[in-house]
Amino acid sequence: MTAFPGPIDPPTRLLMGPGPISAYPSVLRAMSAPLVGQYDPFMTAAMTETQELYRGVWATGNEATLLIDGTSRAGIEAAIVSLVRPGDRVLVPVFGRFGHLLAEIAERAMAEVHTIETAWGQVFPVSVIEEAIVRVKPTLLALVQGDTSTTMNQPLDEVGAICARHGVLFYTDATASLGGNPFEADAWGLDAATAGLQKCLGGPSGSSPLTLSDRAVEVVRSRTRVEAGIREADDVSATDFVRSNYFDLGMILDYWGPRRLNHHTEATSMLYAARECARVLLIEGRDAVIERHRVAGAAMLAGVQALGLEVFGDLAHKMNNVVAVEIPAGVPGDEARRAMLEDFGIEIGTSFGPLHGRVWRIGTMGYNAREDAVLTTLAALEAVLRRFGASVPTGGGTDAAADVFRSS
Amino acid sequence: MTAFPGPIDPPTRLLMGPGPISAYPSVLRAMSAPLVGQYDPFMTAAMTETQELYRGVWATGNEATLLIDGTSRAGIEAAIVSLVRPGDRVLVPVFGRFGHLLAEIAERAMAEVHTIETAWGQVFPVSVIEEAIVRVKPTLLALVQGDTSTTMNQPLDEVGAICARHGVLFYTDATASLGGNPFEADAWGLDAATAGLQKCLGGPSGSSPLTLSDRAVEVVRSRTRVEAGIREADDVSATDFVRSNYFDLGMILDYWGPRRLNHHTEATSMLYAARECARVLLIEGRDAVIERHRVAGAAMLAGVQALGLEVFGDLAHKMNNVVAVEIPAGVPGDEARRAMLEDFGIEIGTSFGPLHGRVWRIGTMGYNAREDAVLTTLAALEAVLRRFGASVPTGGGTDAAADVFRSS
Repeated sequence: MTAFPGPIDPPTRLLMGPGPISAYPSVLRAMSAPLVGQYDPFMTAAMTETQELYRGVWATGNEATLLIDGTSRAGIEAAIVSLVRPGDRVLVPVFGRFGHLLAEIAERAMAEVHTIETAWGQVFPVSVIEEAIVRVKPTLLALVQGDTSTTMNQPLDEVGAICARHGVLFYTDATASLGGNPFEADAWGLDAATAGLQKCLGGPSGSSPLTLSDRAVEVVRSRTRVEAGIREADDVSATDFVRSNYFDLGMILDYWGPRRLNHHTEATSMLYAARECARVLLIEGRDAVIERHRVAGAAMLAGVQALGLEVFGDLAHKMNNVVAVEIPAGVPGDEARRAMLEDFGIEIGTSFGPLHGRVWRIGTMGYNAREDAVLTTLAALEAVLRRFGASVPTGGGTDAAADVFRSS
Repeated sequence: MTAFPGPIDPPTRLLMGPGPISAYPSVLRAMSAPLVGQYDPFMTAAMTETQELYRGVWATGNEATLLIDGTSRAGIEAAIVSLVRPGDRVLVPVFGRFGHLLAEIAERAMAEVHTIETAWGQVFPVSVIEEAIVRVKPTLLALVQGDTSTTMNQPLDEVGAICARHGVLFYTDATASLGGNPFEADAWGLDAATAGLQKCLGGPSGSSPLTLSDRAVEVVRSRTRVEAGIREADDVSATDFVRSNYFDLGMILDYWGPRRLNHHTEATSMLYAARECARVLLIEGRDAVIERHRVAGAAMLAGVQALGLEVFGDLAHKMNNVVAVEIPAGVPGDEARRAMLEDFGIEIGTSFGPLHGRVWRIGTMGYNAREDAVLTTLAALEAVLRRFGASVPTGGGTDAAADVFRSS
């Protein structure tokens, strides 16, 4: 490197893909706040405050509600490796890419992993999940709520009761759904749930909110090992300890709890960001934010349909915050996406696996779940589709979307 | 929570402990830059630029130079779990708390861990390390460079050649030392090294720079497993895969490399921060920054000695960026630290393990390795010591420190 690059100076982008999305301006501001020490009374108070804010986001009274310092998959791995012992049976219903990820992480944790699969674009009837639980007798059910790879939103409201009846721990990955779709950790009987900031919560990737029921905390506690170097004489370590230090929720609970036992050094600026994400959500109101996502998602859906695009998947179970549209025959998908980005500054998403090259994914989440973002995206999409030779009705997309906003 | 808290508004703190420390103002500004998508050409260019900047920081030509999304111990765990197979022998020379941490992480990775120990406040003669290598025949030597728990800086310059001679991989944890003390990844024969931003690099905790030699990359690559969901037909997975998904450096290399294979969603704002930390360091000049740390450290040392305080440990091997001072008899250590924080807004550090209650640790790192920070801290310390009944020479600390700055 002969000349050094200048200060970071990103181009203006409207991020309308499946995430990450444009952060709330106040979240960006929060991250430039000065640092404090990790045991500064201000810092420990900010941690405690953040825990309480996330109890509101998750709709839980769980004491064990905190952040994992890493991206959303760090939260997933922390939950799974702390709850699952090698050889334990784990059941993963797979309805998209992120179900495969849960299975993969559980396999690496040396669990005996059983999967059931459904076609991409579908969710599981709850009876199918119960039938698999009865057959597999797992220790843990690991189930994605919203899978951006397919846009599907798996109903969870009856699953917790089934798990409780069969003595199964119930974990869900709510990365893509939390904040933009209904979620009730306590009412739905969740034992563990994790998320990320970069979807409906409207922050940057890099911090993973996590909550654990008392039953899950008991499992985690039974595997506690306090690390040498800060271990005290009366600390008893389990022989069956978690095979990760960084993701050992027992130690992380002791860091966030009243004992404040040093584990990692909490990522201060990401804590500020996570706190602000939850704060703006709760000030607007959890139900109001979900409703805003519902309306923006319905408007985007009406808009792309009015442009004549086919929508992928079971619409009755689509997440509020993302829609998958079939790329019209003859339109070069990646070139059209590039035109959206380069000529309009708007990002829409490509796809994984069986949908790769077949659909675009368009998101409406967090800060961008709003009318001007939806209408601007539809206007640009209309122009780009026309440029690549697709026949699209003039103004149909924005008109249909505006109608949804007006009637909501 | 009946009323919601306001926007984050931290008190003004001069962070002069063992880390985290006050970030460079430009690093805080960088984190409030708008987000972009993870495959935006701007984002992938910023990732590539950041890799090149860190090659400068590490003094390496290693292609495999990148960031782990987590705190410094995330980087440590990624290096160890990716390089060590269950049953492999790992040698950890322990000269403070963070040696215990390396041993602990290697144990959790199911390695056969062998430690040698020296008294806190000392480092290892290189002959002792070689003797242990010959006896243990480890796959990996895991050695802390600077351990803030004791302030010691283990000489590494001859260790790489010894490891190469005995066919041992050489990993070091440079979290506390990198940027403030000499470090030469290539010249010293490192196979892997990790750090954090919150010490001499002058950023927030939450991103861990990591570099791997080609030899280390070969080991990592031999254990590659591409996760289901994005695996392609010609991807061959090792049976001996890494027992973590999040820390599998093979997948992380594919995300940072030309293949850009999706793993996590890179923590955008932390990438901006890490990039800025390296950028300001290289613009000032790597050697100039180390020299600034040397001078600030020498000034703080002279200052505390001139205040009549005893310094802990082997001064010939002290890190530039932190000093441990004995708490004078009769002075209540925690109360005095609290007075520094509450009355002067200055944080100094407590201690772990055998030094707990016996020494304070005072840091001079990153942005705070500068004259006004050192003199202000010494002036406040003098006032606080006097308040708690210690007999201290008037103005001696600031005079002695100012002399060091004037003569440098």
